[in-house]
Amino acid sequence: MPLIKDKLAVIALGLDPFADAVAKAGAAIERVDWRPPGDGDPRLAALLAEMTGDADDADCPGSRIDRANQEALRRLLAAKPMLVDVALHARKVWPEMGRTLFHAGAPIDWQSMCGPMRGAAVGAVLYEGWAETPEKAEQLLAGGGIDFIPCHHQRAVGPMAGIISPSMPVFVVSNAHRGNFAYATLNEGIGRVLRFGANDATVIARLKRIETVLAPSLKAALARIEGGLSLRSIQSQALLMGDEVHSRNSAATLLFLNAIAVPLVTSGIDTRFVTETLRFIGDNSQFFLNLSMAASKATMDAAHDVAESSLVTAIARNGVSVGIRVSGLGPRWFEAPAEPPVGLFFPGFTQADANSDLGDSAIIETAGFGGFSLAAAPALVQLVGGTPEEATAYSREMYEITLAKNPALSLSALDFAGAPTGIDVRRVVDSGIRPVLTTGIAHRTAGVGQIGAGIVRVAMGCFVAALKALANALDIAEPGSAATRLQETREDGP
Amino acid sequence: MPLIKDKLAVIALGLDPFADAVAKAGAAIERVDWRPPGDGDPRLAALLAEMTGDADDADCPGSRIDRANQEALRRLLAAKPMLVDVALHARKVWPEMGRTLFHAGAPIDWQSMCGPMRGAAVGAVLYEGWAETPEKAEQLLAGGGIDFIPCHHQRAVGPMAGIISPSMPVFVVSNAHRGNFAYATLNEGIGRVLRFGANDATVIARLKRIETVLAPSLKAALARIEGGLSLRSIQSQALLMGDEVHSRNSAATLLFLNAIAVPLVTSGIDTRFVTETLRFIGDNSQFFLNLSMAASKATMDAAHDVAESSLVTAIARNGVSVGIRVSGLGPRWFEAPAEPPVGLFFPGFTQADANSDLGDSAIIETAGFGGFSLAAAPALVQLVGGTPEEATAYSREMYEITLAKNPALSLSALDFAGAPTGIDVRRVVDSGIRPVLTTGIAHRTAGVGQIGAGIVRVAMGCFVAALKALANALDIAEPGSAATRLQETREDGP
Repeated sequence: MPLIKDKLAVIALGLDPFADAVAKAGAAIERVDWRPPGDGDPRLAALLAEMTGDADDADCPGSRIDRANQEALRRLLAAKPMLVDVALHARKVWPEMGRTLFHAGAPIDWQSMCGPMRGAAVGAVLYEGWAETPEKAEQLLAGGGIDFIPCHHQRAVGPMAGIISPSMPVFVVSNAHRGNFAYATLNEGIGRVLRFGANDATVIARLKRIETVLAPSLKAALARIEGGLSLRSIQSQALLMGDEVHSRNSAATLLFLNAIAVPLVTSGIDTRFVTETLRFIGDNSQFFLNLSMAASKATMDAAHDVAESSLVTAIARNGVSVGIRVSGLGPRWFEAPAEPPVGLFFPGFTQADANSDLGDSAIIETAGFGGFSLAAAPALVQLVGGTPEEATAYSREMYEITLAKNPALSLSALDFAGAPTGIDVRRVVDSGIRPVLTTGIAHRTAGVGQIGAGIVRVAMGCFVAALKALANALDIAEPGSAATRLQETREDGP
Repeated sequence: MPLIKDKLAVIALGLDPFADAVAKAGAAIERVDWRPPGDGDPRLAALLAEMTGDADDADCPGSRIDRANQEALRRLLAAKPMLVDVALHARKVWPEMGRTLFHAGAPIDWQSMCGPMRGAAVGAVLYEGWAETPEKAEQLLAGGGIDFIPCHHQRAVGPMAGIISPSMPVFVVSNAHRGNFAYATLNEGIGRVLRFGANDATVIARLKRIETVLAPSLKAALARIEGGLSLRSIQSQALLMGDEVHSRNSAATLLFLNAIAVPLVTSGIDTRFVTETLRFIGDNSQFFLNLSMAASKATMDAAHDVAESSLVTAIARNGVSVGIRVSGLGPRWFEAPAEPPVGLFFPGFTQADANSDLGDSAIIETAGFGGFSLAAAPALVQLVGGTPEEATAYSREMYEITLAKNPALSLSALDFAGAPTGIDVRRVVDSGIRPVLTTGIAHRTAGVGQIGAGIVRVAMGCFVAALKALANALDIAEPGSAATRLQETREDGP
């Protein structure tokens, strides 16, 4: 006699093999993608419960976080990043720079740096003329002759290795809503370029052309655009033209070119400079990447430093660790080991050659683009792998960990829903869903350069650490700590 | 007692109300979108059967049509439309032009013309200086003082009213594969423009700037591009950037601008000309429309005149009728009344103001773009109505009536399937599925201009007439005719 007579209808929350067995037996089954809050850690789950808003208690920690997040989100959504200028040299912006190199991600020293960041630092030393040969440059760097600071500590962002040296020109982006500024270098192109760790003579020569031709030309053009150029407008249009403005900037670059062409031609700059600038931008479909980053940095810095907010205002990778910053937690980084991206590789390279995830460019995801807007860029899967359906699924998933559908950023593949914007640390830990980033892939060895592009998730450790720090800032005792155990004992007591 | 005891599973081919009733009664039902071949006309169905290929009979009419279509399709897919020149005046291309106006669609005389075509003709007469006032221009036109010829009869295509007058500059497109040429005017922009029937002073002044500034500038730039500019490459890239290169050309126009910018700047043309040209193109996201049309015309003319082929090589509307041409049927037009497009209207206008469908631009659909590639342009629904899902459904549907998935034209929303390309007259009549076009909407009154954009289907009458003509050309007696009845009698006889 069968144990169960009626036809079973099953809801599966757990592991696939259990559900598979039920399905095989012929029962109707609905699979729900569910993970226990806090990844099954009861102490984290308890913390999350304490940090959840309560409509009946405006003073509880969760409600205070919710209120702070609304303010941070308001600043994020209202940001108006405008490209207002090109500083011809970084040292004009940071006069105290001396022999300092800015780099991507959280603080790291020469000894701990990954191959591509070391390669880029060597290239920057050669570019600056601080050493004559790569060997001498390495000696100088290893000997402590050069200081390192994260770009993020200077209101700047750098893609991949993210090296900014004093002679490099930088874009100047102003957030017209709150008046804060952000900076980024000019994009070099793809392949063998400094930011991916390449440092040969062609790399250095290209940096010199950027410094001496591109930067003054764009500066002259921008001087003719009253109030600057709206980068948010370009990002927003580009989302309807197949870009997610991180790993794909084909449309955004052309929109930028169109905006700059007439001011450039009428700037009085030498025709050869105009031509070289138009050609450089027109031949480099990722030119807008650095502008997208600076725009996102100007946006997210405006949302930073709202006390008690759990909004993630930066994600950055130094090639060893991935770190996040949180609006209510000041300048602190919450770090965990970075993972290598998974994607497609240029011919001759494999996953084994890939460095761990690298670069400040994930600032773009914190502002709602990149992996969060992957639904906008189905053609990107030809570069990073997967299918257009999977691309859309990534965007859908990111709604689970964000605070808003950004009304300014429309995703046509999701029937024009606003892009998922504003990562809430609580939601990441609660759902177990890690932010997804689109990214380039650098060879792990210094000097090689870009070897592919792909997708990567941010380590959960960053969010768990940030959650605990925020609990601490809100004077919520961590469950399991001495104070809590004592309290629990009291409440359970006679 | 119930009449039927077992649970019913129903496949519904017919009308929805029947299927609804079955579904309401709780039975499982699978609806199949099916129409009887030839729209239920048994004589058409019999013709179609005669015209269907037979693997065992290479000499049967259907197999001959299949073979001819393969050749026509081969020429279509191999076409390489290159923009090689701008002729500064149409009369340079057609020296015998005299006082002739070319117009969109099949032949039509002044008395029969719709409002917007009349308005555009009046504007062209003013532009040419053949009359001083709109009233005098009308008198001249009504008195037979001006000749009219379809653009298509001169290897040209014109959007909407499609008027080409002797002083207008035209793009010169060469098909590098077969050496044939095609021509189109330069796009004026949107709103109050000649092609939508507007003809006031600003319209005429703009046409003069196109003639005196834009045309010589672009001509000078193109002279610097060895072998010309690949329009197919731009069309193909734009499909991955949210355009269907008919009613949306935002990306294609920027790709064109990028291709032309450096040659323009280095052409030696006066900087003011360069600037005005860059600005004109950069401010007009439909600038590429006419280039897309000329590219499609060069492509489809190459596939024309393959004896016995049922490939549709042109769809064109003169505002009264819609006409098609078929590869194996020479210069003949197969016409039926044109329908007004359904879409979205600019503020203040309604469907009642809409002229019937108008323009040669449907040549774009015959080459696999526009309505056939609507899956590529989800954002276009914001202009023409509907949802991104419906846009994708249109492309899916068009596979039913086309011969190929064009490997050069990738639709990311359909997992990079090639765009449905090459309309087969037989498939249209067989399936009852009419080609879908994206289109602008002109006010029915002369002088007003564009009032919206939308979607329209080509009348079935064109395809039925063409099918019968092809049967005739293949010496297939039409069922029901005397000869056929006699034969049927014999076969059924004792």
